[in-house]
Amino acid sequence: MSDTRNTPTLADSVRTTGEGVDILDRRVYPFERRWVHCATVEEVAVAIEEMVTQSSGPMFATTAGMILAAREARGAGPGSAGEMLRAAGRRLIATRPTNNHIRDAVLAILAATVDGPLPGAYGQQLVIAVETAAAEHDEAYLAGTRALGRHAAALLEDGARVLTHCWGDAYLIGAVQAAEEMGKRLEFVCTETRPYLQGARLTAATLVEMGYRPTVITDGMVPAALSDGLADVALVASDRVTMDGHVVNKVGTLAVALAARAFGVPFYVLSHAPDPRSPGIADVEIEHRDGEEVLRVLGARTAAEGARGYYPAFDATPPGLVTRIITERGAFEPARVSDHFAPPGEGPPR
Amino acid sequence: MSDTRNTPTLADSVRTTGEGVDILDRRVYPFERRWVHCATVEEVAVAIEEMVTQSSGPMFATTAGMILAAREARGAGPGSAGEMLRAAGRRLIATRPTNNHIRDAVLAILAATVDGPLPGAYGQQLVIAVETAAAEHDEAYLAGTRALGRHAAALLEDGARVLTHCWGDAYLIGAVQAAEEMGKRLEFVCTETRPYLQGARLTAATLVEMGYRPTVITDGMVPAALSDGLADVALVASDRVTMDGHVVNKVGTLAVALAARAFGVPFYVLSHAPDPRSPGIADVEIEHRDGEEVLRVLGARTAAEGARGYYPAFDATPPGLVTRIITERGAFEPARVSDHFAPPGEGPPR
Repeated sequence: MSDTRNTPTLADSVRTTGEGVDILDRRVYPFERRWVHCATVEEVAVAIEEMVTQSSGPMFATTAGMILAAREARGAGPGSAGEMLRAAGRRLIATRPTNNHIRDAVLAILAATVDGPLPGAYGQQLVIAVETAAAEHDEAYLAGTRALGRHAAALLEDGARVLTHCWGDAYLIGAVQAAEEMGKRLEFVCTETRPYLQGARLTAATLVEMGYRPTVITDGMVPAALSDGLADVALVASDRVTMDGHVVNKVGTLAVALAARAFGVPFYVLSHAPDPRSPGIADVEIEHRDGEEVLRVLGARTAAEGARGYYPAFDATPPGLVTRIITERGAFEPARVSDHFAPPGEGPPR
Repeated sequence: MSDTRNTPTLADSVRTTGEGVDILDRRVYPFERRWVHCATVEEVAVAIEEMVTQSSGPMFATTAGMILAAREARGAGPGSAGEMLRAAGRRLIATRPTNNHIRDAVLAILAATVDGPLPGAYGQQLVIAVETAAAEHDEAYLAGTRALGRHAAALLEDGARVLTHCWGDAYLIGAVQAAEEMGKRLEFVCTETRPYLQGARLTAATLVEMGYRPTVITDGMVPAALSDGLADVALVASDRVTMDGHVVNKVGTLAVALAARAFGVPFYVLSHAPDPRSPGIADVEIEHRDGEEVLRVLGARTAAEGARGYYPAFDATPPGLVTRIITERGAFEPARVSDHFAPPGEGPPR
């Protein structure tokens, strides 16, 4: 990750070394700074499944995991090395189905190597090619977050009080840093985002690191907070945006959107781009996780014995509740977000 | 409390003895069964303020506290004994301003004693009079919950899946028991209700005690759960209902109401009666509690250091989002809930 300013801890939380990949454990951060070491691509996949990292993290873990896969295939010959890489990609894609960046990262690395110009690559040549493709994909991802961050910051007034949900990671960091470069000072209200508390822990800790003093509310307080005038705008990231403008993001996002609509607060969504493989919401698999995860907080039981939990990890906000979807190419009305892919000069003004 | 069927633990959680009042500590139930002993009315007031009990609990603690106040005034003469009782009532009313039942209980006991037929009562006569008035008020409260429970159960289909928020206490117990008497079997989805987790702990534990297997969701999951068809109806209690049909209840209730509206799910509210002293929402004080309470779960820190919390303990749901307000006299359209006080035969059909 190439940002040269003060880098928040979570912006550098997946590190590839000669021995494997170290992933900062976001399940316990910031209370503990524990790194999970993954020696194999399988261990990376399990770490993603078990929520060691999330938000932008799984994308970086995926490109790192593909490097480990190439190293694991070092002794294999042409053809079988490529097949090992593809199998590793399938394993990584299967970890969490909703966010499209894992899939996109795998396909980009394969397209730059064994499914593209290097069909017969193997051994050290394949390792180097995958390392190069992974670095390029990471860099393009971050460049995209900087671009969408500038488009988002342009929409925010100086002094705006911004309501966040979950942890927008590189997207949110991009928007905050762009606002700072424009001389805009923001304030933040963060939903705590149960069951994993990404808002109370990750968003709040990172904003504190960046010099802010965020206000944390529980997930049910969003309408009350907006009714009390606590925030001027809602700004959330997204795990996937469909071509017809549905926003799939951490469960609770739809509740924020409903409250924003009820109180006349703009609801902005950050996304690199809509997903061309998802024309509509029916094309998106909403991950359901183990309901037991809802019955605990940071590992401690919080629900009565005998109760069961239900855990849709994401929800879908329809385009009618979204003010703008902000991609790396501009801010789009949700119903026209597919214009993101229109050639420059065509399509409506952004 | 006079219910003779299997009494759920929380339906008998304020007990007056010769030595004082014992209050089950709802901050830790059901994980611990710890009783807080209050030897004085001041200790009762502090227990209410510190959330030892909540929902219907503070009303029962208030009538019990008034008994302690009468005992404390035992050595005082006429006039000064009554003034001590009134001062205790003011102290209790000041504990939590939003729910009107504390105020109503105090005023009822005073009206039945020193502000009513017994202006000069003191000593043992005052103690006995307050004990009698307290018991009568408790019994009237419970009779009201049985009545509103029957009206609520009449609106629920057999097999209905009911979404709850927070802990409706005697109101919810009344509705569930009435449904059972009508031969209706219900299912339950409970929001966990941060920051105190009343839904995950108190509602879930009591429903388990009553033979159900509730499903717990986080507060942000309500729209997702309704989108997934998990519940047919939302049913919440209320801390106060205004004469123009605003519903003041545990923060997050408005979020449930917005989701119910978005997904076409009826939103029912339980209330003994609207509050004649609250013509509109401007007449209701919304309690704001210490924001630090939002930054913890069951005492353990859950938010990053440097963040602050914001804690409006209640929110206000406008009448337009409410399907029916169910009082002890029937189910009313929210805009006509003041008809609760119309003489029988007058006003529109209920």
